[in-house]
Amino acid sequence: MDLAASSLSVTFETSPDQYRHWKLTFDGPVATLAMDVREDAGLRPDDYKLKLNSYDLGVDIELADALQRLRFEHPEVHSVILTSLKPRIFCAGANIFMLGTSSHGFKVNFCKFTNETRLGMEDMSAHSGFRFLAALNGICAGGGYELALACDEIYLVDDGSAAVSLPETPLLGVLPGTGGLTRVVDKRKVRRDVADHFSTLAEGVRGKRAVDWRFVDKVVPTSQFKETVEERARALAEMSDRPASGPGITLGPLSPTIDGDTIRYRYVTGAIDRAKRTCEVTVSAPGDAGADAAVLRETECPATPEAFLAAGDQAWAIRAFRELDDCILRLRLNEPEVGTVILRAVGDPQAVLAVDEALAAHKDHWLVREIIGLIRRTLKRVDLTARSFFALIEPGNAFAGTLFELALAADRAFMIDHPDEANTIQLSVMNGGAYPMSNGLSRLETRFLGEPDAVAAALAHEGPFDPQEAREAGLIFDAPDDIDWDDEVRMAIEARTAFSPDALTGMEANLRFAGPETMETKIFGRLTAWQNWIFQRPNAVGERGALMTYGREGRPTFDWKRT
Amino acid sequence: MDLAASSLSVTFETSPDQYRHWKLTFDGPVATLAMDVREDAGLRPDDYKLKLNSYDLGVDIELADALQRLRFEHPEVHSVILTSLKPRIFCAGANIFMLGTSSHGFKVNFCKFTNETRLGMEDMSAHSGFRFLAALNGICAGGGYELALACDEIYLVDDGSAAVSLPETPLLGVLPGTGGLTRVVDKRKVRRDVADHFSTLAEGVRGKRAVDWRFVDKVVPTSQFKETVEERARALAEMSDRPASGPGITLGPLSPTIDGDTIRYRYVTGAIDRAKRTCEVTVSAPGDAGADAAVLRETECPATPEAFLAAGDQAWAIRAFRELDDCILRLRLNEPEVGTVILRAVGDPQAVLAVDEALAAHKDHWLVREIIGLIRRTLKRVDLTARSFFALIEPGNAFAGTLFELALAADRAFMIDHPDEANTIQLSVMNGGAYPMSNGLSRLETRFLGEPDAVAAALAHEGPFDPQEAREAGLIFDAPDDIDWDDEVRMAIEARTAFSPDALTGMEANLRFAGPETMETKIFGRLTAWQNWIFQRPNAVGERGALMTYGREGRPTFDWKRT
Repeated sequence: MDLAASSLSVTFETSPDQYRHWKLTFDGPVATLAMDVREDAGLRPDDYKLKLNSYDLGVDIELADALQRLRFEHPEVHSVILTSLKPRIFCAGANIFMLGTSSHGFKVNFCKFTNETRLGMEDMSAHSGFRFLAALNGICAGGGYELALACDEIYLVDDGSAAVSLPETPLLGVLPGTGGLTRVVDKRKVRRDVADHFSTLAEGVRGKRAVDWRFVDKVVPTSQFKETVEERARALAEMSDRPASGPGITLGPLSPTIDGDTIRYRYVTGAIDRAKRTCEVTVSAPGDAGADAAVLRETECPATPEAFLAAGDQAWAIRAFRELDDCILRLRLNEPEVGTVILRAVGDPQAVLAVDEALAAHKDHWLVREIIGLIRRTLKRVDLTARSFFALIEPGNAFAGTLFELALAADRAFMIDHPDEANTIQLSVMNGGAYPMSNGLSRLETRFLGEPDAVAAALAHEGPFDPQEAREAGLIFDAPDDIDWDDEVRMAIEARTAFSPDALTGMEANLRFAGPETMETKIFGRLTAWQNWIFQRPNAVGERGALMTYGREGRPTFDWKRT
Repeated sequence: MDLAASSLSVTFETSPDQYRHWKLTFDGPVATLAMDVREDAGLRPDDYKLKLNSYDLGVDIELADALQRLRFEHPEVHSVILTSLKPRIFCAGANIFMLGTSSHGFKVNFCKFTNETRLGMEDMSAHSGFRFLAALNGICAGGGYELALACDEIYLVDDGSAAVSLPETPLLGVLPGTGGLTRVVDKRKVRRDVADHFSTLAEGVRGKRAVDWRFVDKVVPTSQFKETVEERARALAEMSDRPASGPGITLGPLSPTIDGDTIRYRYVTGAIDRAKRTCEVTVSAPGDAGADAAVLRETECPATPEAFLAAGDQAWAIRAFRELDDCILRLRLNEPEVGTVILRAVGDPQAVLAVDEALAAHKDHWLVREIIGLIRRTLKRVDLTARSFFALIEPGNAFAGTLFELALAADRAFMIDHPDEANTIQLSVMNGGAYPMSNGLSRLETRFLGEPDAVAAALAHEGPFDPQEAREAGLIFDAPDDIDWDDEVRMAIEARTAFSPDALTGMEANLRFAGPETMETKIFGRLTAWQNWIFQRPNAVGERGALMTYGREGRPTFDWKRT
């Protein structure tokens, strides 16, 4: 199999003119993102129909794209109404027949992506000055309600029938795994007994009770719904610190070239070795992409907000991380057997440090803030990817500042200590908290948990670290000399690829997130792990399991043993 | 099947004179708990041999018993050496052949119990003035090292071969699920890359490297090992605030009677209805156990530390919660199909409030502190039990103070609002933080997450709450009147017992623990959920899975897909 030939390959790039399921419209500072799912336009249209605004990965890829464009292309947008164009239907949640006919791995990765997209909305609310208003114009069930829960506020039409519900447990024998259980008790602070009742109530709740129990913020009669929602969205927009007007920058296509098992973007290359079940992912520093460095430098490495606006999506900080994000997503969904990722950063570390300097100097400018956010979310995507990451730090490396976060995100980093060739790493101010992990700590703080002095010392270090300094500072795993390097690295990778892939997934999920937990880590740890367990159980996915029998004839048959 | 007839029933009561696997010895303030597992004395001796101090549930039940006796029977003990009597072997961890031949549900509940026991050691360190020193005299692998990790300090003999290791991932394709992964990064603050390396290293680490990497606190040459350990244990004992000398109280057998599907203790009754898959668990207040109340009151409800010492294990606060603990454990392990527990508290609420007053007044006395700890751990056991709990609050109920924690621990509490019969609940100072949940918050704080005023108002309320007051204060789920009561309760229970047992387990595990996470919740949420997932996967438990092929001929065969 090669990358281009696989008919199962999912691609993650899209744009508004290609959307099949969403309409993105604008009214001054208020954007409306309206769901209008095309039943026959699922990713596997022969296997399921996307009825009642139910969604599959394709629908969510468009949503993620729309959010990204709102961030970068529409600085004038300050609040977003999330609603539906289908009468009396907001969203029925993830498509059950899609889930029922998907492999375990696909289900798990589908849920991970949808969780990241919803957390991305909360990230926009926390960091980017957006406010989201869910305008529930009708049925809002399961994943539909989980999407609403990711918004800042939820308005529900009061038409006598529209209700919010989490019917997964009573109807499907699985969890509302896209953050639903976590957000009702942790975000909306619904009392646990009420949440328990609600989560077993297939028909959900509506009207005053939905407000009293905190499941929605307001119920509005049909006749006033549109007006009330628009008014509230305008009020929410007032709270924003985004600019009053544009322009934004346009996110063009990444247009990678695929050559056999290698995918090449401008700054990122992913090369799969199927026999070894590894993928070498190489990220190039600015100026290392083959073009004329002197010409490129200005658009690659803007130094001012104005220059960033002029450079648009060609700035390295945007392009390299959009590429990395796309590469990681393709790997997750399309290459399940590639268990180990070898990370390299190559090129001029000074160029990366110059980028960091510009980002740090202008971090409060809306566009720079978005660039930092893009990098933050991409690095989290790496943290949350169920593959082993080994960083290899060799002469000519560009593991400096922001790119050193990749080494910190790796399960292990090896740095060659060569007698004849200089090989260094370097930190920047951007390693000091610009890119917190899901646990709320920087990667350095997580690495040196409970040792703030070690974090401070590393950040205070002047200039580059040579291999022994890096090892002594605890910034890398090991620094073998040139004689041992090949064997040590080869053996580490060979050993890794021979272990049980499931045990590695569980091990990494536990070792990567030391320290505090947040709603985000609860969703990816506690909630997701339980959902994955349930997704393996005959009571859900067996021949008579609830997920398989739903909507078909007959009732599920349960093994009643509690575990 | 009835309770007495089942040959698979596990019982949890034991005593030092019955131990087959541990020796508990005393030297002034230092106790030594030495593992000496009898190979042929496993719970299923025909299926596996407990070689190399490997353990099964029976071994761990003895450990839990020994810890309980240290708490109550030996106030003069201030530190505990945890070691082994087998030369050059500390402990090889949970027995692999036991795991390989156990059902999924048994494996999960075995791990839960062992986790609770180890967290109980840390609870003794945090709350009871004990210090634990792991004295690793040889091989310390997997669950053996996880046991050491639960100690305050770890000393390893330096004999050229003794090592600590977590070989689960490389050898067995599962996780070190008894807290190992969590404790290396969160408790011992081992760097994640080092922890990652260690957790894939079947042979583990030893000597200076084990110290440098923080896996142990000290390595000691064989010739000085015994002396150094004893010296350190004496120094640790010095730090204790436990009394210099006894006496303690003796924990006698509970001696429940089993009659068909009903188990009766003095204060607790568990009655299973197999057709409904429910168990009614009723806890009686002091004075309600059939004996002469006037005579009993003094031993049941001591008011002073001296009276508690005189009453010994006959005090209600000790006996009722030992009984409840035993009942819950039997239910977990022996009755997997009983999915719903109906909780009742009956008798005189004033008697419970009198107990609470005595506990609160003398909470700093070592014995009262232990009683509070016993109640705290038992209530946590309820929180962590994978069964649905519904509390029914009816006239004659004793849901007051400490017993009201049971209603707070329940997934839902129903309180009848009867026109003719008084029915009240009441809080006491003991609901104000004496029994924190695993998340570090009291049950009231978790219930009213982010609403400290609601917690304060409930605690400040004078006297009892009638049903409507209780409902308005958010202390119960619902208060149906006498006309609706039977139907509402019956339908709630019938609905509950019809849902997928797996979805309920996952749902409850997510809804019960709103708010912050701790190392304890990480172990039961993140780590355990991933381990349970792995315990379902063919890569572990399939015919060619790593857990099944270990120690037999042939190598495991993996499906390489990462998830």
